[in-house]
Amino acid sequence: MTQEPFADRLVARVRMLGAPLCIGLDPYTEQIPAFFGNGLPAATAFCHEITALAAVHGAALKPQSALFEALGWEGVRLLHAVIAEARTRALPVMLDAKRGDIGATAAGYAAACLGPAPGMEADAVTISAYMGADSIEPFLALAEQTGKGVAVLVRTSNPGAAAIQGLLSKDMPIWAHVASLLAPQTQRLLGACGWSGLMAVAAATAPDEAARLRQLLPDALFLVPGYGAQGASAADAVAGFARTPLGLEGGIVNASRSVLFPAPAQRARTLPAWREAVSAAMAQARAELAAACQA
Amino acid sequence: MTQEPFADRLVARVRMLGAPLCIGLDPYTEQIPAFFGNGLPAATAFCHEITALAAVHGAALKPQSALFEALGWEGVRLLHAVIAEARTRALPVMLDAKRGDIGATAAGYAAACLGPAPGMEADAVTISAYMGADSIEPFLALAEQTGKGVAVLVRTSNPGAAAIQGLLSKDMPIWAHVASLLAPQTQRLLGACGWSGLMAVAAATAPDEAARLRQLLPDALFLVPGYGAQGASAADAVAGFARTPLGLEGGIVNASRSVLFPAPAQRARTLPAWREAVSAAMAQARAELAAACQA
Repeated sequence: MTQEPFADRLVARVRMLGAPLCIGLDPYTEQIPAFFGNGLPAATAFCHEITALAAVHGAALKPQSALFEALGWEGVRLLHAVIAEARTRALPVMLDAKRGDIGATAAGYAAACLGPAPGMEADAVTISAYMGADSIEPFLALAEQTGKGVAVLVRTSNPGAAAIQGLLSKDMPIWAHVASLLAPQTQRLLGACGWSGLMAVAAATAPDEAARLRQLLPDALFLVPGYGAQGASAADAVAGFARTPLGLEGGIVNASRSVLFPAPAQRARTLPAWREAVSAAMAQARAELAAACQA
Repeated sequence: MTQEPFADRLVARVRMLGAPLCIGLDPYTEQIPAFFGNGLPAATAFCHEITALAAVHGAALKPQSALFEALGWEGVRLLHAVIAEARTRALPVMLDAKRGDIGATAAGYAAACLGPAPGMEADAVTISAYMGADSIEPFLALAEQTGKGVAVLVRTSNPGAAAIQGLLSKDMPIWAHVASLLAPQTQRLLGACGWSGLMAVAAATAPDEAARLRQLLPDALFLVPGYGAQGASAADAVAGFARTPLGLEGGIVNASRSVLFPAPAQRARTLPAWREAVSAAMAQARAELAAACQA
């Protein structure tokens, strides 16, 4: 199953769109407009519509595994269907699963998220490194063989992130120690574009840390949460990017709630009106990020 | 959905059995004996058999989510069926999922693992605290309302565990900082037995740390991995337990591979011979742990 490295596929799409926008797919059923119906059928229709719009405006799709799992095994089946649909649209899929386990168990998660688990074939997956390098290795090994990507939680965007991640040890915060586990490995997923598909999750809500993280991981693509609904600006979101002849580059910025549930879409009473509102929100995020990368 | 607190249900079963044995259910399909068949049907039959034997010898069942997920959505459906079967046998189920995410997403995982996600209703779940207190809170809140348990990764059993968990900050290892996030919360899941269902994962392979962790978390039940196939003795496994009039108490020790795939069972050619071999391995682990708790 040889394919182009994930980094090359992702960066090519970012350059084509002119903006590093990742569409987060978080099917909060209680927020899906009433005309979609209820429960699993509503989530199914909503995910199908968002995937189609993300294929126009987004460089990648990031389904949040938790919200599919919360729908039971049928939700997991829906997740597989969404990933398959995104792939037919050539939209790279980063599965936000934040898995973390050891040895053979981590290999099970790698297979479950990136394939060859039956029906599952995301292009990249998010993982936690709290358990150390041996919890990362099975994901790296599979990604290396199959042209997939792995995004490791380094500095997250939530209010409580600093409680553990920000502790200082040997004058370095814990998140920097996690980065130092990754630094010797980035070359394994390096693309021809010069960027690595061994990615770091680096929050838009902590732009100073993102800039410092860039020094530690010069070639890792960043997956940036916290833009939009969580309060960070487009400029904050690209604080860890690098200046290139093409503008700022080096990652992908996620928008979930701000593009899935913008106020005009929540007021929409028909599918065409809803599509227009969601499409406008995605286009605005894309334009903001494009401008921030050219600033 | 009021029920007895998880800590009380678990401790009652440990006392009844006389040993704190947890049976880990890790359906590595390539290790399931040939007479079970292949693929999902073999995993289904194997899980059914192990659950029946665990209900005899184990105080709890700990299915490893990764290995079910690696079987695709049908594997997740099988996981639900296994949990339902264990519940009909009054065998508490600790889902080993090691989830970790923020805010509303963590609430999604809590619902997905502990219910009310359709078909899912484990009694407890393992989670990661790398993202801080706000990533734990939704699990705690749900567990508090529904009599469930939550086991947080503190000090894990894998070779690379110390890389992050063992870093010193303010003269305390990171795992102790994680414990300090939990300490103010244990009372929320406290049972009448005096133990809390806010549990700490504390490896048998690090007995000294387990004993120190007991000082930090005097009333938290420990979930102890690393016994058996990972090399730790029964004495090491209970190093973090507390002396009580009933013997050492304060947690549950997991055995997975050593009781799922013991050599005599792997040589068995028939189901009755396999049952006898697995039952003997479980009985041996139970006896070893009972003796260690009375030493």
